[in-house]
Formats: sequence, structure tokens, C-alpha cells
Amino acid sequence: MSDLKHIFGVGIIGCGLIGQKRAKALGSGGRLVACADIDVSRAESFAKGTNAKVFRDWRDLVCQLEVDVVIVATLHDSLAEITHTAIEAGKHVLVEKPAAKTAAELGPVMAAVEKHGVKVHVGFNHRYPRSLRKAKEIVDSGVLGELMFIRARYGHGGRIGYDKEWRSKPELSGGGELIDQGPHLIDLARWFLGDFSEVQGFAHTYFWDMPVDDNGFMLLKTAKKQVAFLHASCTEWKNLFSMEIYGKDGKLDLSGLGGSYGVEKLTWFKMLPEMGPPETTSWEYPMADDSWAVEMAEFYDDIRLNRAPDAGLSDAYVALNIIEQIYKESGYDHCA
Amino acid sequence: MSDLKHIFGVGIIGCGLIGQKRAKALGSGGRLVACADIDVSRAESFAKGTNAKVFRDWRDLVCQLEVDVVIVATLHDSLAEITHTAIEAGKHVLVEKPAAKTAAELGPVMAAVEKHGVKVHVGFNHRYPRSLRKAKEIVDSGVLGELMFIRARYGHGGRIGYDKEWRSKPELSGGGELIDQGPHLIDLARWFLGDFSEVQGFAHTYFWDMPVDDNGFMLLKTAKKQVAFLHASCTEWKNLFSMEIYGKDGKLDLSGLGGSYGVEKLTWFKMLPEMGPPETTSWEYPMADDSWAVEMAEFYDDIRLNRAPDAGLSDAYVALNIIEQIYKESGYDHCA
Amino acid sequence: MSDLKHIFGVGIIGCGLIGQKRAKALGSGGRLVACADIDVSRAESFAKGTNAKVFRDWRDLVCQLEVDVVIVATLHDSLAEITHTAIEAGKHVLVEKPAAKTAAELGPVMAAVEKHGVKVHVGFNHRYPRSLRKAKEIVDSGVLGELMFIRARYGHGGRIGYDKEWRSKPELSGGGELIDQGPHLIDLARWFLGDFSEVQGFAHTYFWDMPVDDNGFMLLKTAKKQVAFLHASCTEWKNLFSMEIYGKDGKLDLSGLGGSYGVEKLTWFKMLPEMGPPETTSWEYPMADDSWAVEMAEFYDDIRLNRAPDAGLSDAYVALNIIEQIYKESGYDHCA
Amino acid sequence: MSDLKHIFGVGIIGCGLIGQKRAKALGSGGRLVACADIDVSRAESFAKGTNAKVFRDWRDLVCQLEVDVVIVATLHDSLAEITHTAIEAGKHVLVEKPAAKTAAELGPVMAAVEKHGVKVHVGFNHRYPRSLRKAKEIVDSGVLGELMFIRARYGHGGRIGYDKEWRSKPELSGGGELIDQGPHLIDLARWFLGDFSEVQGFAHTYFWDMPVDDNGFMLLKTAKKQVAFLHASCTEWKNLFSMEIYGKDGKLDLSGLGGSYGVEKLTWFKMLPEMGPPETTSWEYPMADDSWAVEMAEFYDDIRLNRAPDAGLSDAYVALNIIEQIYKESGYDHCA
Repeated sequence: MSDLKHIFGVGIIGCGLIGQKRAKALGSGGRLVACADIDVSRAESFAKGTNAKVFRDWRDLVCQLEVDVVIVATLHDSLAEITHTAIEAGKHVLVEKPAAKTAAELGPVMAAVEKHGVKVHVGFNHRYPRSLRKAKEIVDSGVLGELMFIRARYGHGGRIGYDKEWRSKPELSGGGELIDQGPHLIDLARWFLGDFSEVQGFAHTYFWDMPVDDNGFMLLKTAKKQVAFLHASCTEWKNLFSMEIYGKDGKLDLSGLGGSYGVEKLTWFKMLPEMGPPETTSWEYPMADDSWAVEMAEFYDDIRLNRAPDAGLSDAYVALNIIEQIYKESGYDHCA
Repeated sequence: MSDLKHIFGVGIIGCGLIGQKRAKALGSGGRLVACADIDVSRAESFAKGTNAKVFRDWRDLVCQLEVDVVIVATLHDSLAEITHTAIEAGKHVLVEKPAAKTAAELGPVMAAVEKHGVKVHVGFNHRYPRSLRKAKEIVDSGVLGELMFIRARYGHGGRIGYDKEWRSKPELSGGGELIDQGPHLIDLARWFLGDFSEVQGFAHTYFWDMPVDDNGFMLLKTAKKQVAFLHASCTEWKNLFSMEIYGKDGKLDLSGLGGSYGVEKLTWFKMLPEMGPPETTSWEYPMADDSWAVEMAEFYDDIRLNRAPDAGLSDAYVALNIIEQIYKESGYDHCA
Repeated sequence: MSDLKHIFGVGIIGCGLIGQKRAKALGSGGRLVACADIDVSRAESFAKGTNAKVFRDWRDLVCQLEVDVVIVATLHDSLAEITHTAIEAGKHVLVEKPAAKTAAELGPVMAAVEKHGVKVHVGFNHRYPRSLRKAKEIVDSGVLGELMFIRARYGHGGRIGYDKEWRSKPELSGGGELIDQGPHLIDLARWFLGDFSEVQGFAHTYFWDMPVDDNGFMLLKTAKKQVAFLHASCTEWKNLFSMEIYGKDGKLDLSGLGGSYGVEKLTWFKMLPEMGPPETTSWEYPMADDSWAVEMAEFYDDIRLNRAPDAGLSDAYVALNIIEQIYKESGYDHCA
Repeated sequence: MSDLKHIFGVGIIGCGLIGQKRAKALGSGGRLVACADIDVSRAESFAKGTNAKVFRDWRDLVCQLEVDVVIVATLHDSLAEITHTAIEAGKHVLVEKPAAKTAAELGPVMAAVEKHGVKVHVGFNHRYPRSLRKAKEIVDSGVLGELMFIRARYGHGGRIGYDKEWRSKPELSGGGELIDQGPHLIDLARWFLGDFSEVQGFAHTYFWDMPVDDNGFMLLKTAKKQVAFLHASCTEWKNLFSMEIYGKDGKLDLSGLGGSYGVEKLTWFKMLPEMGPPETTSWEYPMADDSWAVEMAEFYDDIRLNRAPDAGLSDAYVALNIIEQIYKESGYDHCA
């Protein structure tokens, strides 16, 4: 499989919105060979126009010989189990975030990776939009200087009946907003700042009639006291993505994620020696989102080059630990 | 003094930037009759063109008969003492925020107010810009529904030598950014949400070479779990004021404070019964700032009508308590 | 047909993009009873799920008894002919702008309306977005004072192969950008300012490889010397709609038309007696476009109440006259 | 005087707002040695703190030996005469735009330059802000491709009594808005597009009670039919500077000029081979305006290097010709 020309056979489990996005973004490196969904008619319509095999039971998919890579795009409650089984079947796996309902579920999955030597990428897709890739490049270049803190706000306004959907049921979702959009914020903050050694935060249910949280506030600190000051909300009313990254020599301001979140935009404020107003350069990315394809291509390369995926199970594990800690302190017992 | 036509004799102590702003905003209800500054030449140039008496020692000013109202616009270390003495001289006092270096200093001052029956207004001036007044009006009208949480970001980027100015000396300032711009954020959040029963936060010195903090992060909660998620910074690089107020039926977004903070703007996002994108109305206030004059006129009325000032010593006391608690937890000992 | 409860039978000729928009926006006042397209398979798929009769030849549609209203959404070259025939069949007609390839074509159509007493509305749809309706309301209220001039910019960036599409063929389109987006600008400007007595302008083909113009500049004047300074472009690169309306007491700034043109926004700058920066209020309309439904409902009412449609054939006639004059002066002979 | 170390002796005639801006921007290459103003007290306060000689009569200044460069910052009616006299005295001259009240006045001045071999720069200062310099650099690099057209809007809202100021008196100003802000627009458009061979336009007095125009609309064409579509206004209500430059491969959007015109901003929209939304990069320039100093330093170099000034008398001549043509066609007789 280290053959550079090998086109990976991909099996997708979960044929909903995200499964469809993944299917459209397989690129030239992969080919849909199988798909599975409890609702088999959904899987059939998903497979239409391809030669992909269709399964009702994902267990049948993961043992198919022509499947090299399994994409797990199901509800949270089955992510860890399916990933685990696929690993044991010797498959490489792209599992959507949060990768499990709890950190504890991920322990045996990580052990299985060790044993079977496969690659597992966690779909922290927000590392891949153009604005985020460019931001990482700027930070890594050193021009911002040492990072001090990050502020981020991420949220949407739900929709009528939002509190009746699967996300509101802790047995399926593992929690509310903090485990839905929260993992992206935690993961991005760690991507830029490194590990957090102190966790403060608060999750609460303000608006929606559901037993899980609709808002999560976080104040995370690295050992060097760099702060991530993060807020995820599904009572944001107007869709918003904003991340501000502060270094000693300047600031990056990211906003938008396309669609209802607004055009992706990145602004670099560069401090001048004389201080005062910073030099300001912006980039906008109104073009079609290529994040899913870039993420997939990177994962193919991880496999070919026997490279550790950039966003892996340990990243999901850390994020879930933070989330659970905040849930416990905020009085939610669904992860007890 | 309940005479509606009485023009108040005002004495200003501290003839720096803020003292000058106050002097220009006395309006038709007051008249500058005295001013004092350790640097007496500064006081003299301040008084030029008026008939105000000039003093080097503020103790001489507070006992002048023609002084009805004392404005205290000195460094933090003398705010409480001067206020206290003026109260005992039977004067009404407008003292700039934070009103003291520590909450403990304010105890005897509040007792003196009780005893002497004068009025003391604390200069929480950020309640008075047009955008904030309009925001309060909207919130009070009820159209936002019950408030859930507030996010606010307030900061500037300092200037060369900022860490050598008086604000960097804890014996003069009582702390850094958290006690400088922080009190405005705490006060505005309380103005909208009410008292906070739980305080989490973190202050840290990231950039400036000084023994006080340059950034303060706060996560405050009312008894009803309404959150104020606040950040004050003097490493903000590009001057910023942003406050977002979330109710169950909509959101207010405030930004700008004029000048280098950008035009004052208020946007109301009103949720529709069908949810989806909110109805959006904005107001901009590019005209000259009238906040100082409105604040002063309100204080004259407080005195005339024997009304408790809207922002008084107890508001400063609460803000200082929150600040001290965060300083202690963050390892700063200057307020010990 | 003056029965307020009568639901109009609507026949749509031309089942392309605009025909589909019209079909979705018939509302409760009308019902699709017939559709026609040269490409009959397109008409069939258009009619799917309705009981509408399907025709290849529009002549068969216009004589159907159950058709009360004909919507003509074909290429420019057949708009006038179909409208004329439908009128003679006693039908009310909504014909898309520009309603004809030339003003001359419209003469006999207008005569037929007189004779048959039916209503003809021209689809100057840009009068109906929320921001334009609100702008008209504000102008009509008088708060802007007497209008002085209007500036407008409208354009898009085409797409690969744009110069091979029907719009580039003068025998089908009657011209290029000036007769495509231009009529909206002319019509809106006349809606606010009234008739133009002087026409200056210039159309030119800068970029696209086609015999028709890709840019039209206009400087139009009313008898009172109010100016409309208008530019339509299909080399605008980034989609843009902007209209600025200046009165003696203030200004309206309209931008956006939804989708790739950006969120619809209206700002009212109100001059204060002391002049200086104006009082500024904005409204945004991110919600779904209702312009097509509002336009249709108004036309049903025009018919029921025997009212002259707000945008009628004479408006199209005037716009075409202006366009032709500019084409001639700019050296285009396709309308000769 | 071709000595690179020579510090030019500068004499400034007209000690108003613009004269003061020029004085502050002389830089290390020049030194104020003389100033003149009819209001000699104004000249005296202008000279305070320098060793500059003070004159009431500009004729006395231009013959001073130590004056190498004369800056003419008077009302329009004396610009040409003073410039002419200074040239004959062998001085280099920076004369503010429009350099004369009429093109005819400039004929003899240009002849004098030929004869005396001095350098004359016309203060078309708008070529020098950072955003304009950067725009020129981008256009000259060729990445926009061949230019097609330029749109520009420039205006302010006046102030109470504006129609009683000198600009409203044609004998002093030579006209209204078209000869005030108009020359900047014409000059910038020519700087990018080259000479105009066809002039259409309209000037009119809509609002202010004065015999000169308050709005000027222009539709100018080069021999290659590139259009400059320009509007200058002193009924703009909210200060505005906007210039949009269209090439076959992209667009530049300039806005703001600092202060009440907003932050200077330049956006480059680069068309991609697949067309669709352009790649978008922006630069903002919130820092202090350096345009006056850059312009002056360039003029010193023009003198030292015996180089033709970038913006010279012929540029002013052309602009005035265009303005006069539009004035005549619009019925103004003050330039007759």
C-alpha cells in the first residue's frame, strides 16, 4: 500500500450530511467501494451512480477486502465502536470528531491502533479551510512572535425543533454544544498553543428544552500560562466563527467559514517597531471550500508515507477529557 | 441645593487628561470654581480663562465654601482618601473608577456617605455613550427576552514605554489592565445582568515588563447562571471595544467607542418566530461624544432630586472585590 | 374576476431559471395550470407534481380557457410577440424585462392593451426586494427632502463561456449588458426620480468576445437636472449591487441583493441641523428573498382592483428608448 | 544645487491649513526660511519657533536669495500669478492644485518654465497616500492586465456656512466642487489610464446657495475607449473616497483617505483562470499619513536629478481644460 499510485478503496459508514461531504471529497486518491447505513435506502441512494456495495450493517462493510479506508460518519454513540472494529479488521480509519462519546471509550481504540499498525485520522476538519491553513503557516513562520493567548467564538442559532434532534439526547451525543462545536475550538486552540494543563469552564442549558448544554465557556491554560478563551453556542442567533490569535509581535483575526458563517477571512495585524496602529493585511476566500479534499489527500499521504496523522485519536482524547471535566463541574451527569 | 436653578460650584482635583474631559463637560448645571494638582503649573494652565481658584494641595480645595461638587481625577492611590475627606467636608463627589486601589479602602468611605448624606457618583463613564444608553433602553424594554450571557472584549495596544508609566506601579495603580479597563467591563456586565455570585478568572503579564498584569480574563456567573465572559487587554494591538448581549429572543452587538476604537455602533438581531437569520437593525453614532456631559447632568439631578446615583460606591466595591479575587488566584500579591 | 377569492390560473411560457422562480412564487392567489417550452422535456419536468398542462408551442397555451394570467419568461426576441398574442387572447400578462428587444416592438403591444382592457405587468423585479421597498417608503415619506441625484453600480463577472451564451447574440438578446442588467438600473432610477429628459451614455465591449456590449455607463437627467449616474457591467469581477440616493436632507445607501451579491442592506444617513456626521441607521435582510411573491401578489391585486400595474409597458418602453439611444451613440447597429 | 547634501531653503506663501501641512512635511531635505501671508499675524505665528523670515507681500518672499523652493498654497485666484513670478525669480515651485483658475492662465507659466529651466510640481497630493502608491505599483506590474475603466466617487458634506466661504466665490475659486475635489479625480484617472480624448459631464448646484457647482459628474474616454466615470460632490453627506480600477485580469478597490474619510484601504481582486469569485487580498493603512512628506522628498529629488516632476503643470492644464469644458456645457459662465 506504499505504492504511490494505489487508489484507496474507501468505505463510508453513515450516509448523512457529513458522509456525503466526505464522499464528494475523496479526490483522485480514493474511490468509494462500499457504504453502509441503518437506513439502507439512504445508503442505496448514496451509492447511486457508483459501483459501491451497499450494506445495512456496518460490520459487513469493515471486513470487505477492497476496503482500505473506512470513514466513520455516524452518531457519536457508535463512533468508537465502529472505529475499533475497523482497526481490528486492519483498516485505516477516518473517524469524525469527537471520535467517541467519552475519553474512556477511546482507550481501547488507541491500544488497538498500536497493535494493528493502521492509521487513524480524526476529522477535525476545521484545521483545513484555507484561512486556517494560512494562519498556521503564518504562526509557524514566527512573524507573530511567541503566542500569548487565543480568543474564539463559534456558534449558530439552531432551528425550530433543534431540541428534539439526536444531538439533544445524551445517550446518542454524549452532550450538547460543548461536545458538538466545542471540540473544534479546543482542537484549534491546541493546534496553535499546545497542551493545556489547567481547565476552567462552564456549560449550561439556557434556551433549548433538552437535558444537554446549549453553551460552553472555556478558560484553558498551557503550562506557560497561554490562555485559550473559548465559547461555543447554539444560541448564537447569527452564525459566527471568530478566532483571534495573539503573539507578542502581532495578531491574526480569522472569521467566517463560508455559507451562513460568512466568507472566510484572515487578517494579519503586524506590530511596527514604533507601535501604534499595526500594519494590516487581509485575505478573503470566497471560492468553493476545498477543506474536505485537502484533509483526505493528507490522510492518503499519511498512509502511504507511514506518517502519524496530524489530527489523531490522542487529539480527540485530550479534547474529550477537557469537555468531560467541564461537564462534571457544571453539574451534568450524562458522562458520569 | 434642591433649587432647580442652582448652578453647582465644581472643584476638580487632578488636572490630567480625565480632569480636562470633566471640565469640558460640566454643562450649564455646573461651573468650575476650583482646581488642584500637585503640579501647580498644570492646575494654573487648567484654570486659565476661568475664575477658578488654583491649589497645590487638594485639602485646601475640599474645604472651599463655593465648592458644591468635588471631582476626583487623580491616580488610583489617592482616590479613596480624597473622596473620604471631601465627603467629610460635606461635598458631593464624582470619583473616577475604580474609586480606590482595593475594596477594603472603600469601607470607611461608604460609611462616611451614610453619615454625611452627600451623593457620590463613581465615574463608570462607559454607561453613558449613546450606544450603551440605547442598548440599556432596548434591554429594559424586554424585547430581547430574558438575558442569558454577555461576551465582551476591551483593549488597546499600549505605546512605547507603557511599562514605565504610573499604571505599571502597583503602589500607585493597585494593579494592571484588570483594574484599568477591567472595571468598565465588570460594571457594564453587572448593569445588564445583576450581581455575580461566582467568580473565575485569570490575570497575567505576557508582554510588558512590569509587575502588574497586562491581560485579565473573567468568567463570572449570577445566581441564575447568567455568564459574563470578559477579557481586558493592553496587548490587544488594534484598539477594540466589543460587547455582545444575548437574550432568549435576540442579541445586541456593540462595538466602537469613537476615536481609535472606531465609530460607536449598535446592532440588534431580533429572532423571528420561524427562527433562521434574525431581523437586523443597526445604529451608528459618528457624532461627537456626549457621554461625559450626560453623566454630569445626571449627577446634578441625583443631587437635586436626592436620588441614589446610578453608579455609586457599592458598584465600585463589587468590581474591586472581583478584581482582587482574580488577582489573588492568579498569584499577584500587590493587593494582599 | 373581481371576486377576491378567485385563484388565478397561471400559464408560464419559458421554463428556465426565471420561469422556475416565478412558478415557486405564485403564492396562494394563483395556481400553475399550464406551461410551455420549446424544449418540451424541460416543460414536463417543470410541471411535475402539478396538474399543469404541458405545451411545446406557446400559442397553444395562451388560448387555454383556464389560463387567466400568462407569464412570459422567454428570451428577449419573443417577449413582445408572445405578450401581444396573449393580450389578444384576453389574458393578463406578466412579461419579464426588458419586455421587448426594442421600443418599437412595444408600440403595437401597448395599443393592444388599450383595446383589450387587460393588465400587463413588466417584471422589473428589483422594485420588490425588502431593501428597495423600504427605501421607497423612506423616500416617499419625505424625510430625505427633495432628491438631487442617484448613483448606482450593478454588475457581475460572467463565467467561462459567457460570450457564447444567448445573451451575446444580438438577434436573440437585442444587446448586451446594457439591455440585461441596465433596465433594472434605469427603472429604479426613474421610480425614484421620475422621467429623464436628457440622455448621455456609453456602451462598449471591453472583455468578452462578442458583438454586444459588456459595459454600459449612463448619465441621465430629469427636467429638474436630477442626475442618475449609472453603470452596469459584466466585467465587475466581484458581484455588486449598489444604489445611493441623495436628498437635500439625507442619503440612502442600498447594497446587496442576496446570494453572491451579498446580504441586502439599507442605510439611512440623516443630516442633522448642525450638519457634521449624519445620524446613521441600517437594516439588513438576510432572510429568504420574498420579492417574487410580493410582486406576484401585487399583480393579482392590480387585476382584481382594476389598477394600473406599478411597473408597466410604458416603463419598459422608456427604458428601451434610453438603451437604444446609447447603443446608437456608441456605434452599435444591432438595434438599427 | 545638484549637491545631494544641499538642504533646500523653502518659502511658503499662504499660511492656512495646506501651508501648515506642507511646513510640517518639509522633511530633512528642506528647511523653512520664509513665509508670507496677507494676514501677517498668521504668517508670524506660522514662523514661530523657526528662523523663517515673515512677509506680508509674497513678492518680497520670492526674491529672497536663501529661498530655493517656493510653495504656493494660496486661494486659486493667485496661484498662477505667484507661480509665474517665482519662476521668473529662478525659483523651483510647488503649487497646489488646481495651479490656476483656468487653463488659459497656465499658458504663460508653462512658457516661463521652459525659459528659466526650473522645476514646477503641482500638488496633486492624492498620488501619494500609501494606498495610491501601492495601487500604482500593482497596476504597473501588469497583474491587472489591460485597464478597461475606472469608477471614482469623492465627496464631503460641507458644513454650516459652506456657501459663504471663499470656495463659493468664482472670482476667487474659479468654480465649485468640480474645481475643488474634481482635479484630484481627473488627475488620478489620467495617472492610471492616460489622456482623455472625449469629455462628457455635468456640473450643477443642487443644495448650497452659491453661484458655483456643488456636484460634478464626468464620463471621460481615452482614445482606446477606456472610461473614467467620476463624481465629485460637496453634498455627499458622509465623507467618501472610493476609486475602483478595472483591468481584464482583476480589480483594485481603494477607499478611505484617513480621518473622516475612513482608514485607507486597498483591495486587490485577482481573477482566477476558472473565473468565479476572485482571490482577494486587502491592505489597510491606519498609520499616520506620510503622503505630504513623500511628495516633498520626490520633488527635492526631481530638482537634484534634473527630472521632470511626476505631476507637473501640463497635468494641471489638462485637468482645467476638462473642467472648463464641463462648466461651459453645464451653463456656468464664470470661466468664460
